[in-house]
Amino acid sequence: MKIYLGCIPCFARQAVEAAKMSTNNPATREKIVREALKKAAAIPFDKTPPHMGMEIHRIIRRTVGDTDPYKELKDRYNKKAIDIYGELKKLVQESDNRLETAVRIAIAGNIIDFGITTTDSIIHLTEVVEETLKKPFAINDFEQFSREIEKANRILYLADNAGEILFDRILIEEIPDYTRKVTVAVKGHPVINDATIEDARQVGLTDLVRVIENGSDAPGTILETCSREFIEEIEHSDLVISKGQGNYETLSESKYNVYFLLKAKCPVIAVDLGVEVGDIIIKKRK
Amino acid sequence: MKIYLGCIPCFARQAVEAAKMSTNNPATREKIVREALKKAAAIPFDKTPPHMGMEIHRIIRRTVGDTDPYKELKDRYNKKAIDIYGELKKLVQESDNRLETAVRIAIAGNIIDFGITTTDSIIHLTEVVEETLKKPFAINDFEQFSREIEKANRILYLADNAGEILFDRILIEEIPDYTRKVTVAVKGHPVINDATIEDARQVGLTDLVRVIENGSDAPGTILETCSREFIEEIEHSDLVISKGQGNYETLSESKYNVYFLLKAKCPVIAVDLGVEVGDIIIKKRK
Repeated sequence: MKIYLGCIPCFARQAVEAAKMSTNNPATREKIVREALKKAAAIPFDKTPPHMGMEIHRIIRRTVGDTDPYKELKDRYNKKAIDIYGELKKLVQESDNRLETAVRIAIAGNIIDFGITTTDSIIHLTEVVEETLKKPFAINDFEQFSREIEKANRILYLADNAGEILFDRILIEEIPDYTRKVTVAVKGHPVINDATIEDARQVGLTDLVRVIENGSDAPGTILETCSREFIEEIEHSDLVISKGQGNYETLSESKYNVYFLLKAKCPVIAVDLGVEVGDIIIKKRK
Repeated sequence: MKIYLGCIPCFARQAVEAAKMSTNNPATREKIVREALKKAAAIPFDKTPPHMGMEIHRIIRRTVGDTDPYKELKDRYNKKAIDIYGELKKLVQESDNRLETAVRIAIAGNIIDFGITTTDSIIHLTEVVEETLKKPFAINDFEQFSREIEKANRILYLADNAGEILFDRILIEEIPDYTRKVTVAVKGHPVINDATIEDARQVGLTDLVRVIENGSDAPGTILETCSREFIEEIEHSDLVISKGQGNYETLSESKYNVYFLLKAKCPVIAVDLGVEVGDIIIKKRK
């Protein structure tokens, strides 16, 4: 998915939010935002939206040093998610279709996204889960997903955000022979609240499956910015599970066998997918 | 009021909206938005927010020619407002305090603001009026306003938006000896949906009172951009009635005896005024 004109105000919002998160110094914040606007003014529209998110955080690192401004927020949401792990697990165990329930839970976790949600909003995780369990899929390739997942030998799971990654664990644990078949990829560098190897560790994923870093600092999967190890992994996977908007935006036009699991949280993505804001999706790339 | 960091995403949104309103050509829209971002990246933060609105519309005029992209929308809201004139007039006539009711109606009209509201939202005018009649003022200098308006000899009324200007007429008609005492100032050039002389004509104001153009193309009252005639008028007025956010943003630090009548529609203004978003205000400049 390319950059739409409608993405521009969101870029500005992200820059202001991230500047505020990364420094208390008004002059430094202003400098970051000005640099980001300059970058936005020149960004080629054939890039994907996460390209701009990546640029914003590069500007922040150049300006205030190699910080992780969302660290505290990420830790907090990992903890919040861990606190309801038992509850989520029980929902799966008591459901008629364990895999579908786990898919829905993984999508519910996608609400924890500070690229979209402002950092001061309060997210009620269990309410979101309840709602997501009942909601019809706006795009529903679940049956095909269910069949493919049985047959796939090498599955690459592209994590999205911290906190959300515990919800991903719930789904991973429902994949047959997951310890052997599933590799999880996290970001190679902190960017917004995207999950890194540290978040995978906090939610216990590193003890369950192989977790690799994708080598990139983009809030999505921009292949040109990924490591050779990651590219080899995605090239050799039978099936890729892609969580969230950033991964959709960057892989919707790729060549891989990807299933996109996400909640459409912005009007631009909703239009691109032909759904409504708030809709949930499990979509095979065609 | 100076530009806050929180204004920046709104500038980007305004640029995208205005670009979409002024041309259907995607390349031209992109050009406008890129120019606006470049301008925003460099704007001094000691300017007021309407300065950026002015720059955006200057970019549009330079790019697509001297258009009035909001013309149709302005005509439509003038008409909508005219349609309920009798209803509004009756509310004043049947009220215990005619002046206060008229002030509230004038503030209710301030909801018609396409600098803030997206152009595709539907505004239910009579519902907004009903709500505004009951709402307590978050800042209430009405008593003083009421006393000063009795004594003032020369009153300058700074209109804000088209449509809204019919609501202003309701208030103007309650000012003692208004035909002699009140001058209304409208914008010197179309900008967003701000009222121009044409809108004053459409709602019948030009037949009631003296209406002058302020000579400026800013969505507010940036004195450096106003005509000599306007400056002389404001210098010699005993009392200035300033409608809406744009006029507040540009005159809150001026030297004049201004009463600001507005609805706080954005979080930045709300913080600046120490009120909540949605609050209504009649505030004497101190």
